[in-house]
Amino acid sequence: MRTHQLRRDFASDNCAAAHPKVLAALAEVDGGHLPSYGADPYTSLLEERVRELFGQQARTFPVFNGTGANILALQAVTPRWSAVVCADAAHLHTDECGAPEHAGFKLLTLPTTDGRLDATDLADIARDARNRHRAQPGVLSLTQSTELGTSYDPIEVAVLADEAHRLGWKVHVDGARLANAAARLGIGLAEAAAGADVISLGATKNGGMIGEAVIVLDPDADGVGFLQKASTQLPSKTRYVSAQLLALLDGDLWRSNAIQANAMADRLAAGLRGVPGVRVVHPVEANAVFASLPAGVAEQLRATYSFSDWGPGVVRLMTAWDTRPEDVDGLLAAVRTLSPGGVHDSTAPAVQEASSPESAGFLA
Amino acid sequence: MRTHQLRRDFASDNCAAAHPKVLAALAEVDGGHLPSYGADPYTSLLEERVRELFGQQARTFPVFNGTGANILALQAVTPRWSAVVCADAAHLHTDECGAPEHAGFKLLTLPTTDGRLDATDLADIARDARNRHRAQPGVLSLTQSTELGTSYDPIEVAVLADEAHRLGWKVHVDGARLANAAARLGIGLAEAAAGADVISLGATKNGGMIGEAVIVLDPDADGVGFLQKASTQLPSKTRYVSAQLLALLDGDLWRSNAIQANAMADRLAAGLRGVPGVRVVHPVEANAVFASLPAGVAEQLRATYSFSDWGPGVVRLMTAWDTRPEDVDGLLAAVRTLSPGGVHDSTAPAVQEASSPESAGFLA
Amino acid sequence: MRTHQLRRDFASDNCAAAHPKVLAALAEVDGGHLPSYGADPYTSLLEERVRELFGQQARTFPVFNGTGANILALQAVTPRWSAVVCADAAHLHTDECGAPEHAGFKLLTLPTTDGRLDATDLADIARDARNRHRAQPGVLSLTQSTELGTSYDPIEVAVLADEAHRLGWKVHVDGARLANAAARLGIGLAEAAAGADVISLGATKNGGMIGEAVIVLDPDADGVGFLQKASTQLPSKTRYVSAQLLALLDGDLWRSNAIQANAMADRLAAGLRGVPGVRVVHPVEANAVFASLPAGVAEQLRATYSFSDWGPGVVRLMTAWDTRPEDVDGLLAAVRTLSPGGVHDSTAPAVQEASSPESAGFLA
Amino acid sequence: MRTHQLRRDFASDNCAAAHPKVLAALAEVDGGHLPSYGADPYTSLLEERVRELFGQQARTFPVFNGTGANILALQAVTPRWSAVVCADAAHLHTDECGAPEHAGFKLLTLPTTDGRLDATDLADIARDARNRHRAQPGVLSLTQSTELGTSYDPIEVAVLADEAHRLGWKVHVDGARLANAAARLGIGLAEAAAGADVISLGATKNGGMIGEAVIVLDPDADGVGFLQKASTQLPSKTRYVSAQLLALLDGDLWRSNAIQANAMADRLAAGLRGVPGVRVVHPVEANAVFASLPAGVAEQLRATYSFSDWGPGVVRLMTAWDTRPEDVDGLLAAVRTLSPGGVHDSTAPAVQEASSPESAGFLA
Repeated sequence: MRTHQLRRDFASDNCAAAHPKVLAALAEVDGGHLPSYGADPYTSLLEERVRELFGQQARTFPVFNGTGANILALQAVTPRWSAVVCADAAHLHTDECGAPEHAGFKLLTLPTTDGRLDATDLADIARDARNRHRAQPGVLSLTQSTELGTSYDPIEVAVLADEAHRLGWKVHVDGARLANAAARLGIGLAEAAAGADVISLGATKNGGMIGEAVIVLDPDADGVGFLQKASTQLPSKTRYVSAQLLALLDGDLWRSNAIQANAMADRLAAGLRGVPGVRVVHPVEANAVFASLPAGVAEQLRATYSFSDWGPGVVRLMTAWDTRPEDVDGLLAAVRTLSPGGVHDSTAPAVQEASSPESAGFLA
Repeated sequence: MRTHQLRRDFASDNCAAAHPKVLAALAEVDGGHLPSYGADPYTSLLEERVRELFGQQARTFPVFNGTGANILALQAVTPRWSAVVCADAAHLHTDECGAPEHAGFKLLTLPTTDGRLDATDLADIARDARNRHRAQPGVLSLTQSTELGTSYDPIEVAVLADEAHRLGWKVHVDGARLANAAARLGIGLAEAAAGADVISLGATKNGGMIGEAVIVLDPDADGVGFLQKASTQLPSKTRYVSAQLLALLDGDLWRSNAIQANAMADRLAAGLRGVPGVRVVHPVEANAVFASLPAGVAEQLRATYSFSDWGPGVVRLMTAWDTRPEDVDGLLAAVRTLSPGGVHDSTAPAVQEASSPESAGFLA
Repeated sequence: MRTHQLRRDFASDNCAAAHPKVLAALAEVDGGHLPSYGADPYTSLLEERVRELFGQQARTFPVFNGTGANILALQAVTPRWSAVVCADAAHLHTDECGAPEHAGFKLLTLPTTDGRLDATDLADIARDARNRHRAQPGVLSLTQSTELGTSYDPIEVAVLADEAHRLGWKVHVDGARLANAAARLGIGLAEAAAGADVISLGATKNGGMIGEAVIVLDPDADGVGFLQKASTQLPSKTRYVSAQLLALLDGDLWRSNAIQANAMADRLAAGLRGVPGVRVVHPVEANAVFASLPAGVAEQLRATYSFSDWGPGVVRLMTAWDTRPEDVDGLLAAVRTLSPGGVHDSTAPAVQEASSPESAGFLA
Repeated sequence: MRTHQLRRDFASDNCAAAHPKVLAALAEVDGGHLPSYGADPYTSLLEERVRELFGQQARTFPVFNGTGANILALQAVTPRWSAVVCADAAHLHTDECGAPEHAGFKLLTLPTTDGRLDATDLADIARDARNRHRAQPGVLSLTQSTELGTSYDPIEVAVLADEAHRLGWKVHVDGARLANAAARLGIGLAEAAAGADVISLGATKNGGMIGEAVIVLDPDADGVGFLQKASTQLPSKTRYVSAQLLALLDGDLWRSNAIQANAMADRLAAGLRGVPGVRVVHPVEANAVFASLPAGVAEQLRATYSFSDWGPGVVRLMTAWDTRPEDVDGLLAAVRTLSPGGVHDSTAPAVQEASSPESAGFLA
């Protein structure tokens, strides 16, 4: 049945294949009948593994996709009247076709230049909301790593979470790419989301196939299982979702997958910085590179490569767990060829760049 | 990682494993990057295959699960104020934890004894709704095969659909087990849902792993793709959902899977009918057997087998694509042993029973 | 501008005019500027008055109409995943065009013959809901007086509320006609809803114009003010809603209004019972009479009187605070004239009937 | 019962009393029974009157309040997946506690400096929404007059509506203060909302008590009556809402009410402009004055007057139909007294200012 050529592209990490160990895990849990809806032994194993990683209060709800994880997570920790505070670049706000609003959530957005929220902005929103005509913030949602390819360092997350808690809000971490942040920061998944009351733990973009998990840390979150079913996010053959997550957690496969994706983004950014007329727009702290290309380059590059436009003249180039150096180098060569005067810079020292001061803080 | 014993049980067809060809299909579409969100070649293949089966107007939306498929399907064909007419035994009503209502749908339920709706009941609901205080029926949802293990024959479906259309309603078929009905009736999937404007096409219970499809036949249904995203049912790595559906459609694997499940239900029903004190409650026209067991039998049987209680003294025993004759016979032996005087009937002619008048009409 | 004739009809108590004291109250609170959204002195007076009547924990939220009151009340006391247990005759279920479902509530209905719920039925619903696929009951909604013209006596309400609380549910009283029940029972409004966590306190049908109130007794109900705004039920010029409620509470005008309506229903029922071929269908314990009329009578009666059909051969005749004896007697005369042989019974002893054993228990 | 002093304040036009003719109209339609839910003769009169004003296709739905009108209006003209484009200053966005989102609407906001939208911004939103991950704009909502006290002139409205229609969107006018805009512009209500598919026609802030109307001009808007009930905005004793609207439409009372409010805003603005250190922030084109006051003035002024803070150092002073010159002059005197050096400007020529170039265009 295979009809496609095996190539790596830069459109999104959700265009990548599943990791072989994820596929293998599906086969391992296959066979015979097992209780559905999460009562199988693999989901139990996953729950245990998550408790080891995130603490004994952690409860695990395997779900289908990131948008579903976010909606369930937000419902899990808020009463009916809560609004959500998030960045204007948040996936919740820009890329879920109104799913949060369909679930009744108003998003109170804060402007951001690099995807990160600033804790000092939260109090303003709280102050503005002090009357019954305003939607009432009940939860802060931050994305780690962010939609703009940056990562919060653990202190930033802690400060944001503390400030949110001080204001009486819960904290949600949209961790569709939590692995990329943790790998970049050299810390664990839990540390990268420290202070969260609920986490959307991504798997699909990290080498998974179909599946994510909602990790509930808030002991007061009631009825999450009911909300999961009512929000259409309860898999029946849960073992196959849990298996993917177990495979990614096993031996820290999540980390090696993320390290590879991040390294390829570094390589790509380093190469691009050596091309005259190209500007890397945001700090590269995960697996995305946002770059401003010389006029006309993006249009021609699209004949051979997939990637996303991200506003006037800016493109998003995204790497994945399966991106190889030669994929990056191929793209770089194409950019150099297409850029005026760019070809002479083809010897730009990518490795040296990867340990540039900008990213060193994280990698150290 | 495998920690479970390979046994077949009778709790639900969603406890069964994935069919080997489904697993194999996941491996086939794996590798390399492909466009996400349905723009991959396998989803195109699926769309083409569905058009061949359901007609050129058919549009295909691969989704995650049955509840999600139902909610999307109902939203796709109704305006905001529509209520849903369905049987009081409908999965929508009894087993989705209020997901339809969370999406704003009032269900107007009709009583049913065997899961089937009667077309002559529809006009009453329409008449009762003729004022603005009543929720307005906008779509009829029927389940094929039904939650009680029965199947509508094609004429019944056509009559229901015609009556619904006459009343100005759309028609939704919850086809979580459409394959079982079509196999039983000896017809195609499209014929088993003839007249439908939108179909929830089941895969998970038919040997799939994680995935179903919404088939939209109503040419006036707008914005389905947006609703799919907003209702959290748009897979990113769609190829892996489409691959499952393609595998099940390929060479009519869906039919052989369903025939096996149905045959095992027949075998089970035939065997049970030979046990004194046991009564098979509904016609067995798909892959479920509802049986009234002698007092105390269900409780003891549960030590070895999984199945569902279905009201006082009645159990649901469900077969799947992977149920084997020896699994059925093992259960039957246990029932006979536990039933007072039952053991003497162990030679009950199962094969002969399978061609009993009751089911003959369907198998012919 | 007046273009209508002043007549009293039997279609509904919401067809009646406003009581003169209600109109007068609007004029009294008129003039000058006052804080909006409930910060005016009349709303404060109302809040104080409600605390006197319902207890110091009572919080008052003046709203616009009964459906709005019900939706706000149910949201006030339940988490996101709760379903509502109510009678199949409940206004919530039959006459709100799906408003509860639009707000996300699944209604779990119990059959009722006379509008009243039976506490012994509640445990079954709780038992059936013990899995995550079932909508989870979170609140019992009972209507006092019921949609079928009956009233719960205080012990019945207490038993229902106790059983609901034992099951972990909240208790909502839809009191669109709480005044009629309290008047009939000879008790206070609070007593007629004893055990409730939240009450929809009706005013419109009791001589009000536009306005009801949600009385929250549950001290744990948070965010009600926000929900009131978000559910579009927060009046800006609240003083005019509060004034109506104050007028009805002042000097127990609510009670005299309800007594008049109830007495007219008694007179009507008594008269109807004397007409051959007419049958009063439910106990008359408030201001509605459900009657089975001889064939053809309803159709002819409709030429002169408005009333509601209520199933085959049964009509609902409803009295209001402004219904006069001569209005009732006019209707009775018409029914007698139209009924075969009915005219000879025109001397039926209405007064004696009103103290019949059936209703004596309540009036005592 | 009256306990309040008759004074006029500047907090909001919804703090004002009802106009005497509105009160009188309630008394006129009072008495006797009339069909409920809009089937009364006064609602018919209103419908006829609205058709005369807005065109024969106009359908009228009397509702309770502005938020309710907006939600119903938006639902009336959009399918399930539509988002709403509006200004970031829109009442919908800032002052309805998330009611639109509770009804499933995502708001796509455009920045505005004076409350007005610019038609040239719409195409950008349409362009950005061209993928299924983005919420899809389905309706433009503009407020006339705006929340910042400005009014669109008819050409601006027409250009906005044309552009919205060109993009395939519907057009909603939030006309909570449509009267103020029409009065300012010297045109009719329909002209002030020309091009709209649906209008929230305000009454409460224009001298009404409790009531607004949704005017549906889009002939394709189906099921509005059902949506009205399901969204809790269907009054039962509709005659009392219709009567208020009739009173305001009769003899163009709406216009004289608005002219008075607008004139008082002009007087206020003119006076404020004469106070050193005071700056009038937005053009005064309706009945609101936004002013920047010298440091400390607002705090002291609040001891005697009510008004709203509107961001750092800016207050909103709002006039109403019942604001008198002496009320304005009293406030002005207080501001002058409190402002450093302000008292010497007490003879500032208010009348001359009112015909200043800035506002002349509208008044001409």
